[in-house]
Amino acid sequence: MSKWYIGQGKDGDVVLSTRVRLARNVTDYPFVEKLDDERRMQLNEKIRDVILPLDTKFSFIEMKSLTDTQKISMVERHLISPEYTTAPNGRALILSDDEDVSIMLNEEDHIRLQVMEAGFALEEAYEKADRIDNELSSKLNIAFDERLGYLTQCVTNLGTGMRASLMLHLPALTKQGVISRLASTVSKLGLTIRGAYGEGTSHTGDIYQLSNQITLGISEKEALTNLASIAKQIIQQERNARKELTQNDDFVDSIWRAFGLLKFARKMSCAEFMQLISLVRVGVSQNILDVDVEKINELTVSLQPATINARHKENFTAAKRDAVRAKEIREALGG
Amino acid sequence: MSKWYIGQGKDGDVVLSTRVRLARNVTDYPFVEKLDDERRMQLNEKIRDVILPLDTKFSFIEMKSLTDTQKISMVERHLISPEYTTAPNGRALILSDDEDVSIMLNEEDHIRLQVMEAGFALEEAYEKADRIDNELSSKLNIAFDERLGYLTQCVTNLGTGMRASLMLHLPALTKQGVISRLASTVSKLGLTIRGAYGEGTSHTGDIYQLSNQITLGISEKEALTNLASIAKQIIQQERNARKELTQNDDFVDSIWRAFGLLKFARKMSCAEFMQLISLVRVGVSQNILDVDVEKINELTVSLQPATINARHKENFTAAKRDAVRAKEIREALGG
Repeated sequence: MSKWYIGQGKDGDVVLSTRVRLARNVTDYPFVEKLDDERRMQLNEKIRDVILPLDTKFSFIEMKSLTDTQKISMVERHLISPEYTTAPNGRALILSDDEDVSIMLNEEDHIRLQVMEAGFALEEAYEKADRIDNELSSKLNIAFDERLGYLTQCVTNLGTGMRASLMLHLPALTKQGVISRLASTVSKLGLTIRGAYGEGTSHTGDIYQLSNQITLGISEKEALTNLASIAKQIIQQERNARKELTQNDDFVDSIWRAFGLLKFARKMSCAEFMQLISLVRVGVSQNILDVDVEKINELTVSLQPATINARHKENFTAAKRDAVRAKEIREALGG
Repeated sequence: MSKWYIGQGKDGDVVLSTRVRLARNVTDYPFVEKLDDERRMQLNEKIRDVILPLDTKFSFIEMKSLTDTQKISMVERHLISPEYTTAPNGRALILSDDEDVSIMLNEEDHIRLQVMEAGFALEEAYEKADRIDNELSSKLNIAFDERLGYLTQCVTNLGTGMRASLMLHLPALTKQGVISRLASTVSKLGLTIRGAYGEGTSHTGDIYQLSNQITLGISEKEALTNLASIAKQIIQQERNARKELTQNDDFVDSIWRAFGLLKFARKMSCAEFMQLISLVRVGVSQNILDVDVEKINELTVSLQPATINARHKENFTAAKRDAVRAKEIREALGG
């Protein structure tokens, strides 16, 4: 089964993936913060009974049934938020088997519906989320105010309750040192640019998350159009910067060296891997290297620390994991 | 024609090559410092007429007929001393076509006869030098004092006029930081350990030159036995240190990474090449990597800056030369 994070979608040289998240609450229950475990579980089952009949691909997973390793691996795959791993009681996840739909129950809101797609696919992701949202609305009393829109526990989500985001690979703009200027520009336009794992996370491997900030007094369509239009400009800037950088022999050399290290190293930390694979990704996009992008996408997810442990059902030391990571890179890249 | 510096000789994992040099002067002429160009040339021809009939493999090369690039390349191949390139007038070199015999005329002494061999081959090199020396003695009046021995321009060579040296690859002892202690020990035993290009040069690529210091009041045989016995101890120390180091995963990783960089880099300075190839050499000696040592030996000589320029008959910029070097490494190692 090919996961969304492995495929290469539209504008996949810069846009790794798209995510649309809708925050919803059910009127019959107070907000999550005020719900005890028992009522949370009651609510989980109610939502499960709406979603599971929609498609056989959905599974219902109680968070307390998962090991820490499994939970952190889910964060690494962007299926759940880091916060969602901390207090498992009364929390459950509805996950599609190709992992493109992930519904966190009792995270900050009763329902955090997320749809992920490869590449630049805001409309597709939104439509898929919207269809599931319509099912929820038809079967449950979703908290909605005619004037404000969807009611959410945190005011920053009030209105559309929608956060749409694009995972962008911006190695050339990072190299040119223009990201902080870009961040300040997009913030004036109602967007934010952050590390790959959201607020306060670093831009490991030159991967950034561009998302809308405004949910109130704006329609979903307007928010998506705004995000798409700014994203297109950033994509173009990144492509121009890459073209410029690849005129530089030292930069081209650094791409080949990264490839050589990945193919031969016997130990590799996740941070170094992310940094080197970023260069390899640019090399592929500029026709310098010939590596299957799906392989790169797969490694980028499968070599995250907890995902390695989860796959091997082991609790490796960091040193052992670095050796396993290096071995799996060599196997994938033919070192 | 395989040159002495390409083959792998006895104890070739540590001893890259052996050199025996004899300093001789002819009584009919004052020391070099006191000789004008015309008399130097006269002397050159006299010596030429003794040596060239010995073997068709010898050529007589006037130093002023060479370009700077050719001369520096000869230094890089250890055929002549760096000082010998500075004032070409009145200087000539007798060189064998496999470059194992190099006779500098009018360097510091009238005759600086050098014999080079791959690996640990002090006796072989000395015997070959001795045979040529006997020819010289039988045809020329060589300056010799019954009490002192051979007379040389500089007192440090008085006596045997012999300097025997071994080019040692000591990456593990370098890594363990014991070279300066070793240097102080060997100096008490009448030996010296220096960079690959002699006094005041650095130990690029962990290559050192171990040689005798004492020429007075000692026979050639005693000097060679002393050098050989200390060399054997150093060889054993280096081998033990390598065994110990290769127990360390990080060190093994660094060997593989060096190999990956050599196979894929698009630009490489000579200093970086020497550092990386040193690791590859250890990797081969410890059965970690499978690379032909003769290929490594050849690259170590052929990728020196002036030798690259001389081979391509170009005066490359440093950047261009780094690109040529990287290309030739890839071709040799199959990158």
